[in-house]
Amino acid sequence: MNGYSVFAPDWLRHRAAGLPDVITDPDERMEVANELAAESIAQGTGGPFGALIVDGVTGAVLGAGANLVTSSNLATAHAEVVTLSMAQFQAKAWNLSEIAQEPTLIVNAQPCAMCLGALIWSGIRHLEFAARGADVEAITGFDEGPVPEDWAQQLERRGITVAQGRGETRAHEILSSFRRLVDNGSLPLYNGRAN
Amino acid sequence: MNGYSVFAPDWLRHRAAGLPDVITDPDERMEVANELAAESIAQGTGGPFGALIVDGVTGAVLGAGANLVTSSNLATAHAEVVTLSMAQFQAKAWNLSEIAQEPTLIVNAQPCAMCLGALIWSGIRHLEFAARGADVEAITGFDEGPVPEDWAQQLERRGITVAQGRGETRAHEILSSFRRLVDNGSLPLYNGRAN
Repeated sequence: MNGYSVFAPDWLRHRAAGLPDVITDPDERMEVANELAAESIAQGTGGPFGALIVDGVTGAVLGAGANLVTSSNLATAHAEVVTLSMAQFQAKAWNLSEIAQEPTLIVNAQPCAMCLGALIWSGIRHLEFAARGADVEAITGFDEGPVPEDWAQQLERRGITVAQGRGETRAHEILSSFRRLVDNGSLPLYNGRAN
Repeated sequence: MNGYSVFAPDWLRHRAAGLPDVITDPDERMEVANELAAESIAQGTGGPFGALIVDGVTGAVLGAGANLVTSSNLATAHAEVVTLSMAQFQAKAWNLSEIAQEPTLIVNAQPCAMCLGALIWSGIRHLEFAARGADVEAITGFDEGPVPEDWAQQLERRGITVAQGRGETRAHEILSSFRRLVDNGSLPLYNGRAN
């Protein structure tokens, strides 16, 4: 019991290293998140989710990540937690607001109950996502947990803005391709619940 | 961006290594969680929270942890996430139900919004906690996030039972001692929210 680690797989390190230093175009940011999700499926390292963190003022890329639950054997290694944690670990700062202006998380799907809570503790100031939670559940079969109906207002009340819609069609395609691989037994659905 | 790690501080490794292999007495289990929280304050490695995981049938101890947010620079390093993750990492299993019978998490306080979600993904089957969330917020000043009013039923519906009350008085004492250290500037309150 000395701790735990998440190691970015080679493909993710290469993909992250190959990103521009700055991405200002919101469509391009979401495309990165979506294609990280797609690559995550292709590489078999976790669920169909990808995320990007940028400085909301300069567009500087602070981190890129993907779901690594199955490859890291850690149930919390969702794309949002992985991406937030890699940026915090590198900067030695649990509060991303201390190392960037208006830190912004872009993710291909609405955060689950856990990641919703993680956002509030992280210092993120803006969230943009593509697929809605209900669609994630309907398409993939994941249980996203007890997300309150007014979750977006709960974030806004805490100084975190929320935007949705960009990249949604592509996000649905990627989630559907994941579901087909689950249905044919190629990939696991990592719900931990008993029933 | 190669990943991230949480290292258990020396005091936690020694404390965990010194625990009995099996703890069957529920009072003793909660005492461990409470005293991990107290030691966490004394050592200055994080917030006033401690947790224990046991096999619900045999009482075998699967892990012990504490909040390590400030010492690890990771906003997600709450006691529950740290303890679940250390056990998963050691067992190489994201689903604790695969490595133990009725895996049970004992924690000195009600899980925040993030940790509530983390429980559902982890394979935990029973939760026992001491201090209620509203009391945690009132005593410490932490914002526990958007926890739904019916959160316990949300867990029960997913096959996770919930028990509360044991150790509550001691938990309140420990949380109050943390608050005094925050108020005199000795320890940080690591809320990441903007307002």
